[in-house]
Amino acid sequence: MKSFASDNYAPVHPQVLEEIAKVNSEHMRAYGADEVTEKAIDLIKIFLEAKNAQINFVFNGTGANVTGLQTVTNSWNSIICAKTSHINVDEGGAPEKLLGVKLLDIDAPDGKLTPDLIKNLWVRMGDQHTSQPNVVSITQSTEMGTVYSPEEIKELADLAHKNNSYLHMDGARISNAAVSLNKSIAEITKKVGVDIFSFGGTKNGLMGAEAVVIFNPELGKNYPWIRKSSMQLASKHRYVAAQFIALLSNDLWKNNASHANQMAQLLRSKLENNPTIQITQKTQSNAVFAILKPEHTKKLQEKHNFYVWNDNTGEVRLMCSWDTTKEDIENFSKDVELICK
Amino acid sequence: MKSFASDNYAPVHPQVLEEIAKVNSEHMRAYGADEVTEKAIDLIKIFLEAKNAQINFVFNGTGANVTGLQTVTNSWNSIICAKTSHINVDEGGAPEKLLGVKLLDIDAPDGKLTPDLIKNLWVRMGDQHTSQPNVVSITQSTEMGTVYSPEEIKELADLAHKNNSYLHMDGARISNAAVSLNKSIAEITKKVGVDIFSFGGTKNGLMGAEAVVIFNPELGKNYPWIRKSSMQLASKHRYVAAQFIALLSNDLWKNNASHANQMAQLLRSKLENNPTIQITQKTQSNAVFAILKPEHTKKLQEKHNFYVWNDNTGEVRLMCSWDTTKEDIENFSKDVELICK
Amino acid sequence: MKSFASDNYAPVHPQVLEEIAKVNSEHMRAYGADEVTEKAIDLIKIFLEAKNAQINFVFNGTGANVTGLQTVTNSWNSIICAKTSHINVDEGGAPEKLLGVKLLDIDAPDGKLTPDLIKNLWVRMGDQHTSQPNVVSITQSTEMGTVYSPEEIKELADLAHKNNSYLHMDGARISNAAVSLNKSIAEITKKVGVDIFSFGGTKNGLMGAEAVVIFNPELGKNYPWIRKSSMQLASKHRYVAAQFIALLSNDLWKNNASHANQMAQLLRSKLENNPTIQITQKTQSNAVFAILKPEHTKKLQEKHNFYVWNDNTGEVRLMCSWDTTKEDIENFSKDVELICK
Amino acid sequence: MKSFASDNYAPVHPQVLEEIAKVNSEHMRAYGADEVTEKAIDLIKIFLEAKNAQINFVFNGTGANVTGLQTVTNSWNSIICAKTSHINVDEGGAPEKLLGVKLLDIDAPDGKLTPDLIKNLWVRMGDQHTSQPNVVSITQSTEMGTVYSPEEIKELADLAHKNNSYLHMDGARISNAAVSLNKSIAEITKKVGVDIFSFGGTKNGLMGAEAVVIFNPELGKNYPWIRKSSMQLASKHRYVAAQFIALLSNDLWKNNASHANQMAQLLRSKLENNPTIQITQKTQSNAVFAILKPEHTKKLQEKHNFYVWNDNTGEVRLMCSWDTTKEDIENFSKDVELICK
Repeated sequence: MKSFASDNYAPVHPQVLEEIAKVNSEHMRAYGADEVTEKAIDLIKIFLEAKNAQINFVFNGTGANVTGLQTVTNSWNSIICAKTSHINVDEGGAPEKLLGVKLLDIDAPDGKLTPDLIKNLWVRMGDQHTSQPNVVSITQSTEMGTVYSPEEIKELADLAHKNNSYLHMDGARISNAAVSLNKSIAEITKKVGVDIFSFGGTKNGLMGAEAVVIFNPELGKNYPWIRKSSMQLASKHRYVAAQFIALLSNDLWKNNASHANQMAQLLRSKLENNPTIQITQKTQSNAVFAILKPEHTKKLQEKHNFYVWNDNTGEVRLMCSWDTTKEDIENFSKDVELICK
Repeated sequence: MKSFASDNYAPVHPQVLEEIAKVNSEHMRAYGADEVTEKAIDLIKIFLEAKNAQINFVFNGTGANVTGLQTVTNSWNSIICAKTSHINVDEGGAPEKLLGVKLLDIDAPDGKLTPDLIKNLWVRMGDQHTSQPNVVSITQSTEMGTVYSPEEIKELADLAHKNNSYLHMDGARISNAAVSLNKSIAEITKKVGVDIFSFGGTKNGLMGAEAVVIFNPELGKNYPWIRKSSMQLASKHRYVAAQFIALLSNDLWKNNASHANQMAQLLRSKLENNPTIQITQKTQSNAVFAILKPEHTKKLQEKHNFYVWNDNTGEVRLMCSWDTTKEDIENFSKDVELICK
Repeated sequence: MKSFASDNYAPVHPQVLEEIAKVNSEHMRAYGADEVTEKAIDLIKIFLEAKNAQINFVFNGTGANVTGLQTVTNSWNSIICAKTSHINVDEGGAPEKLLGVKLLDIDAPDGKLTPDLIKNLWVRMGDQHTSQPNVVSITQSTEMGTVYSPEEIKELADLAHKNNSYLHMDGARISNAAVSLNKSIAEITKKVGVDIFSFGGTKNGLMGAEAVVIFNPELGKNYPWIRKSSMQLASKHRYVAAQFIALLSNDLWKNNASHANQMAQLLRSKLENNPTIQITQKTQSNAVFAILKPEHTKKLQEKHNFYVWNDNTGEVRLMCSWDTTKEDIENFSKDVELICK
Repeated sequence: MKSFASDNYAPVHPQVLEEIAKVNSEHMRAYGADEVTEKAIDLIKIFLEAKNAQINFVFNGTGANVTGLQTVTNSWNSIICAKTSHINVDEGGAPEKLLGVKLLDIDAPDGKLTPDLIKNLWVRMGDQHTSQPNVVSITQSTEMGTVYSPEEIKELADLAHKNNSYLHMDGARISNAAVSLNKSIAEITKKVGVDIFSFGGTKNGLMGAEAVVIFNPELGKNYPWIRKSSMQLASKHRYVAAQFIALLSNDLWKNNASHANQMAQLLRSKLENNPTIQITQKTQSNAVFAILKPEHTKKLQEKHNFYVWNDNTGEVRLMCSWDTTKEDIENFSKDVELICK
């Protein structure tokens, strides 16, 4: 059964396994001092047009976010983020545990922070009694399937910098955002003022690999210790790095993301005319959010795997992956037609 | 110049210094193994009608809250509290630093949590991906000068307990609440379901002493290590404990708090008929909150010390202490009349 | 160039990649709720004869040790370990960062703790001023290539338990120890009193997978939150679990370890008669430790990759892997003969 | 009964209570923004000949050490210290809990680090896998009653600085060391290279007050947040600061320490000719260490309060205080003569 539950329910793209197999011979230095890692880093630097960036690989998205943020936060800082952000509600409290920081979580119905929503949060600066905001963290594409335009990111970066703060981007689904905007990833990260960037791979067809990109290498000078002491340093490191070589080769990042986004559009088109269904978010990446009647959801879930996002409203999330097929959507849509009426 | 800035701007009540002087002879065991401490603990047990409670002294309010909460939280827990609560905005991020927890801070305009405000927060229980709420923390009297009735506390305790959670009370100004309600402190803590209680003394005339009261001693079995490793264990411990002996002797706790509350009532009465001034909160303890015109505030602050609570609205906080006099209020009121028109 | 630097310089065994490929189809639930993970856990339970154990997978050895230890330590505890132990000198301070504990590191020239070395360390128990030892952590095989006998482990377990403490085993190279002793892994873990066990895979031919085995499941009830908040939970979890299926299938664990151990014996035999070389440790697993003349080491390192273990003494570590060949040893030995004279 | 158990069993010197009473009138700003604090800081700057130093007050010795060290350590650092040091064995693991660091505890029978003992500890610098030493922490006078000469401190400071590390001094009994050496405190701190200094007061007649002195103010720029988030910021701050005014007035620091040291000399002279008693440490400050027969110790403890320092050897610690009298010593000595034979 194909699932609309999460893009991490999907398998690994064959090209990724091939790349892994390709590097699986001979001894190589461990812990990232190998040629595969070197090549992967070089590819990312070119890809992001960021030759001075400090780039490191970690195991998972939580690891990428928390180690990246650790480069700029002290325990008395706070991080401005959306209430729905992954760091706020889906990382088991790892940011608080490892960083000791406070998260200033802001209501943002579409998952997107705006200057207006956050501009008044830098209060009591210099006051030792209260946590000092010094990072704005945004997710691109957001947990609600929406996408920041380059201009919107730039505005947030400028606001953050004006307040002596950094802009962090959780890019677990950055590729989906880029293809949605028809931009390069450089154009929506480095070029619009992002300081620290979690470059996601796992949700876009990799097995388990994320890159932490610190555009100003000065910020990253302690990163090796941060990563090791946060238990995110792989020993047989080439197998993590090789996944990123695959991702950036043959436009895999783009093809996978583009396909997933298209499937989400197709899925949306199948749902949006159903009078019992209310689409709740723009479909700008690979997720469709919609409110179904609870009894419909229940019946659909007997055959299809997807998550209820909000128990109170009945909103569900339908997530498409690099391997979602038109047939998968047809099968699901047929059941929707049968049930949701 | 007498101040309305904070009750910790006030000096120490003479009876407290007398008690300190009284214990200042002979050698005594350090770190709380002395007879003064024993006596203070016994007095509190009687006072709170809680003979089995585990009672310990610490240096300050932040220390009381954070060590008390540490008895029941793991880093993957979250603590439900009001957005204006001291643990959320006035402890420099100590709860996150020392406990690693997340604070679920809820908008509560009068500083008071209610069952309705929080009852939907126990979501995703059992889900390893998200911080698990297991404490409700309330402040009595609140940071906004309001007071929970015993019934309101009981309701919150019941709700917390129903959700396998604890009720923590930050009682930095517990005495002001008790006299306001005309209740004993036992009646608004132990008897209505509070599990962990920061019994405040410093803001009510002590020099620097708070007690952490853990009503179920089983919860407190690791408390000695929590306190020591959190750097809240006094070596010459008798001088901290003696302050509580003073507080509970001759009704000092009640007299001080009662006086401060009365002064706040008097102050309020002087302000509430001024058409340029808008009282913003009930005056149930020793604080008056009011919106003044910014230019009036500025002029008043040239002669009187008090805090602007909210820069955006112009709300100020006027705090009365055990030593505030009618004359202080008269002097202030006269200037208000001259300036605020 | 084949390396004697570390067993994590070796590639992944082909059977592991095959197993990974085998599970790479269809959607599966993420975060460990999949059938591959279920199968891997069942295999381990049978393998360890521990049907009630709580078993979880993590990314790396540091992750396994630190999350396992976190099930039983508070920040005021201390962990008794050898000075050379991985948790003490090779985890970047992760135990202190994530657990807040103190490591009581004991000089043990062969890497092995003994009852005599540690029996006096449970002092000041009950004293809030000092960290309380509650775990003994041993490594099997040790970082010095030596191996604990089952009886030695049992003695340490008994001593730990007598002192209300747990026995933790860092089994990064547990398979090498088991084949060296001609015992099952169950016989040197569960059956001799180990409480918490890091079951290593990466150094024995896997890509990156370790299992945390908590024999008393009561100790593991919070483990899911510990792992998630410590950032060790894989999303596409099947690819971690599948590696353990490979390890436990077709005796891969035994064959790999047995081969590596034999190569170490062969290597030792080539060195031990060289009068310029002094073997410094028993060769009981897959490492040979020896003191070479610094100028010899330098020349050898021009052609061969291995680590100087102790700059002061000139001791080097030569590590064999599942893929070390007799030819590799011959090549190295020839250069040794040429250079070390 | 007068005690030889600890100098914190002693009461507060009357001059300290007088100074506290003196500042106990009028409202003053809280949290250190008051004139008493300003005066105390100015006095210390003059006293230490360190006009640029950043000086702050905290509650206790553990608080002073841990917040001071926090200005220069990250969790991946290690702190070189003596095995007997207070931070290592008497702070309940607070350094590990709050700083996340590793303590490299070195055997030093007289409590004193030497360049020879520590010069080889800066190994694997730059290696992300192991905690990086960046602080040497010494105690003056030591926990064993011995004293570093200025030259010895200077040598350690030079060694630390040469290794890009800081010299931290736990000066809980700094006054006893200074009078022992007949030096000013400036001469054994700032002038010989100490970077971060815990200026102890509590053990020398204060009620509970320590100062953290950061000689290079650049290091202290985050100190206010460190202190607040570590729960060491007093609200009614004047009462902490006033104690230091007392300490530095009328040579109280010197008189108290000098008296305690003299009493220790007298005590030593009474014991050293007893053939059943073996003095184990130089008596350079206010402590006498000696091995007594266990049965003698037991009998003596029935009448006198003192600590067995080492259960294995029977070594005891006899600590003199500012208030120890010749009569106390006579009484104790008489019992020694009666019992220890």
